[in-house]
Amino acid sequence: MSKRIGIIGAGTAGLHLGLYLRRHGVEATVFTDRTPQEQRGSRILNTVSHHAVTVERERGLDVDHWPAEEYGYTQHQYRVGPEPLRFEGDLHAPSRSVDYRIYLPRLMEDFAERGGEFEFGRLSPDDLPALAARFDLLVVCTGRGPFAEMFARDPEPSPFTSPRRALCAGIFTGVAQQPTRAVTFHISPGAGEMIEIPTWTEGGLATAMVIENHFGSPLEALAATPYADDPGAYVRLMLDLYREHYPGCFERIDVNGFDLANGPKDIIQGGVTPVVRRSHTVLDDGTVAIALGDAHSTVDPIVGQGANMASYAAWILGEEIVAREVYDERFVEHVDRRRGDRVLSASRWSNFMLENLTAPTPQFQEFLGALGRGGSLADEFTDGFNHPERLWDALATPERTRAWLARHSGDGSGTD
Amino acid sequence: MSKRIGIIGAGTAGLHLGLYLRRHGVEATVFTDRTPQEQRGSRILNTVSHHAVTVERERGLDVDHWPAEEYGYTQHQYRVGPEPLRFEGDLHAPSRSVDYRIYLPRLMEDFAERGGEFEFGRLSPDDLPALAARFDLLVVCTGRGPFAEMFARDPEPSPFTSPRRALCAGIFTGVAQQPTRAVTFHISPGAGEMIEIPTWTEGGLATAMVIENHFGSPLEALAATPYADDPGAYVRLMLDLYREHYPGCFERIDVNGFDLANGPKDIIQGGVTPVVRRSHTVLDDGTVAIALGDAHSTVDPIVGQGANMASYAAWILGEEIVAREVYDERFVEHVDRRRGDRVLSASRWSNFMLENLTAPTPQFQEFLGALGRGGSLADEFTDGFNHPERLWDALATPERTRAWLARHSGDGSGTD
Repeated sequence: MSKRIGIIGAGTAGLHLGLYLRRHGVEATVFTDRTPQEQRGSRILNTVSHHAVTVERERGLDVDHWPAEEYGYTQHQYRVGPEPLRFEGDLHAPSRSVDYRIYLPRLMEDFAERGGEFEFGRLSPDDLPALAARFDLLVVCTGRGPFAEMFARDPEPSPFTSPRRALCAGIFTGVAQQPTRAVTFHISPGAGEMIEIPTWTEGGLATAMVIENHFGSPLEALAATPYADDPGAYVRLMLDLYREHYPGCFERIDVNGFDLANGPKDIIQGGVTPVVRRSHTVLDDGTVAIALGDAHSTVDPIVGQGANMASYAAWILGEEIVAREVYDERFVEHVDRRRGDRVLSASRWSNFMLENLTAPTPQFQEFLGALGRGGSLADEFTDGFNHPERLWDALATPERTRAWLARHSGDGSGTD
Repeated sequence: MSKRIGIIGAGTAGLHLGLYLRRHGVEATVFTDRTPQEQRGSRILNTVSHHAVTVERERGLDVDHWPAEEYGYTQHQYRVGPEPLRFEGDLHAPSRSVDYRIYLPRLMEDFAERGGEFEFGRLSPDDLPALAARFDLLVVCTGRGPFAEMFARDPEPSPFTSPRRALCAGIFTGVAQQPTRAVTFHISPGAGEMIEIPTWTEGGLATAMVIENHFGSPLEALAATPYADDPGAYVRLMLDLYREHYPGCFERIDVNGFDLANGPKDIIQGGVTPVVRRSHTVLDDGTVAIALGDAHSTVDPIVGQGANMASYAAWILGEEIVAREVYDERFVEHVDRRRGDRVLSASRWSNFMLENLTAPTPQFQEFLGALGRGGSLADEFTDGFNHPERLWDALATPERTRAWLARHSGDGSGTD
């Protein structure tokens, strides 16, 4: 039986799936509108950390070109301002962030070298009948545009219909790293959150920042003010706002050297509407199109789950494609039964954090207070970025949060 | 954290769960309206085979009092009449059938000896608030009556609203066993099916028969005619109908010795409406009631899945209760993610067989023809009684059935 898999989209989901399939001798064709060279010269699309579970899959795919022992970080630092409460949590194994303008082109080259096919160009839904005729299964991995909209929004796990944050992400220079290389979460209550990620770029180690601004707060200007119109003014605006809202970062900024690392292409501004979509659709000729990664679930980057969830789901989809022969709705059931909990947990936990960092419940404030005492609770929370379903188990209800805190209250690390 | 589990119903689901929990030191109380002694003297409720996967769980629960090596059978014989097509399939390990009037009381005693609590008496839904207050989780395992109706019918996997067969089940004497001890499936196209099960009773080995009669066929009389009114007439009716419809059984019947093994309590007549229900409900005080076994999914006995599915789901629920602390809707998600495919596959496959044995599709006729050539296909089908999700993988669509047949067509056992 032939196994011809068509993959629309060349992000983490599409490439990890394509590489998995090639590793197991399955024909795979990736459709994308950008060549590796075009990807290299593009504006940043996002800033992404790959957690240890994803790095482990990259080893399995033989694409771990940036060993986490050298390129990674092993800690989260947390700063809850304005007089920053400071604490930290350890990861069980290093996470790693590489500029996707390096990462994705390299994996595209790996895929092509290993017999994967690319077709470059812009597709439209009008192309679907022809694509369906060519492939046994279509996998859609693009979170925006008409292809994602093939999959209906699932209302129950999709509580929002608009972005929860005015977003800005950029890669900056002029920020001293923490003594231990770490991602740092800054929380300015009522105003925003900012995540510093030590990220490898063409110019070496730099600082990616995911800047999550509450609508209506002064920080919203960071998403609304175009950098390119007046770079100097934008940097002054950032410094002024960081001094007040993110002092735990500001204290490490060299105000004279601080700027985007490589000019206007190093920043992106906008917003993300979190959405979980139906996992598949059946095309007119009976071919199944299955949603993967962002097409399946688009998350706000607040806790960095998008790419990691996409890689996880791609691996499972790859295993199921290799193990099975018929790609129909029963096939999708098998895939969903395995990937569903993590995909949904990543979305639920991201949405939970967005809501509680906007308007904390008393239970979340108690949780944050306990987290602030560090120790095993902070470590478990931090390492939970690898396993969002475990964090959802711990945070889904006040009763669950209480049970989690109780488990950690006797470990000597807290004050109670 | 306390773990107090209330179990309503003392069938396979409730007892396997209770025994699992006691084995792991969890408090469990089983509510039932029958003492072991009352159960022993009761009318038969059903006739049940435990497949090897269930026998394996019984070993794990230390209740394997009827070792399958001695009490079991290792084969299915198939007879498709009226001029019977005969073939057979092997099980990878023996299945076993023991009269539930022996089996359930013995397991009840095991449960009590191991610290399990019983409360005997008839419950009504009015008792639920008081029960909810006493337990951290309520498990409902009764497929009939008001407790099952706490869980709404799930329409998608529940295509029927009335029974598909006029059913009769009884335990008979006067039927010679097959040379190799085996369950025998008799199919009388357009009229009915009859499954002979070598079953251990108080009086030794006897023959349980599950008699599945199509509505409107002459065989329906076997479900509609009361045995007790005139036992001799009923036996003559059976013999006349079996001679015509189930000659592969009739030829082994001693017409002078044939009768119910122990009188009128050895027969039950009626019908089952297959239904899959919502897996849980949340009671007024927040306590979750979770459906298990028949309360979750009631199947027609055509392929003997009810008790095996119930035992499987009970084991998983037991593992999850032991592993987790909070019994809420998130808990139910974890249980359902693990048990769902087998529960649903058992139901779908049972319904598929009911429909195709009533009005076979061309694809099913082709499948039955291939099955009739025996060999690896018949073995895989037979052993699939252990793993209904594998049979559903193979039978869910014509394309899947074709792929399955193709996999077996080159093994030398077929004629093609």
